[in-house]
Amino acid sequence: MTHDSHFCPDFHRAVELIGQRWSGAIVREMLAGARRFSELRGAIPDISDRMLCARLKGLEAEGIVERRVYGETPVRVDYQLTGKGRALEQVFIAIGHWTDEWAVCPKSSTTGPEAA
Amino acid sequence: MTHDSHFCPDFHRAVELIGQRWSGAIVREMLAGARRFSELRGAIPDISDRMLCARLKGLEAEGIVERRVYGETPVRVDYQLTGKGRALEQVFIAIGHWTDEWAVCPKSSTTGPEAA
Repeated sequence: MTHDSHFCPDFHRAVELIGQRWSGAIVREMLAGARRFSELRGAIPDISDRMLCARLKGLEAEGIVERRVYGETPVRVDYQLTGKGRALEQVFIAIGHWTDEWAVCPKSSTTGPEAA
Repeated sequence: MTHDSHFCPDFHRAVELIGQRWSGAIVREMLAGARRFSELRGAIPDISDRMLCARLKGLEAEGIVERRVYGETPVRVDYQLTGKGRALEQVFIAIGHWTDEWAVCPKSSTTGPEAA
């Protein structure tokens, strides 16, 4: 990995966008396909309706999630990842590998993976 | 990518740990080598001493950063990544690729990468 100036605002923004509380879980859930609001809420423990709504709006504003409204009665709405959102899969795969190798526990050993 | 239950607490924790404000920038800076407190502060725009101190303690508690004290006069202290911290490089590479391909701008196109 090259480090020219080490600090890159775009990179920094991307890291914090992905890591914002609940955003990772929401995007990860949608990597498997489009989801309705109630499906997302049911899949993510402890998230409130208000927080889920706020996160979805934020992800929509970032061009990561697309809200789709179907002209049915009653109106049906779902959320799916855009191309930009789906492209996060590689990031999530890398995080998954890291999680598998280094169980995320406080005060862990520094000499090797904890989960042998 | 497989999604069994979609929601994984360890994964969720890892994502938020990496994405916590400033943590990504601090770890990224240290991927290039050990750093003194003043070097980190100088490399990361806008971070306060208090915030940098808090983040370093948090990363130390997670086993990602190691604080080293050298028995010199005056005492010298620096910070380096542990094995667990260095293993984050693959995650950061993936985020870097995503950032390169999809400039992180609000209201972006959903049809393809913005940075052609």
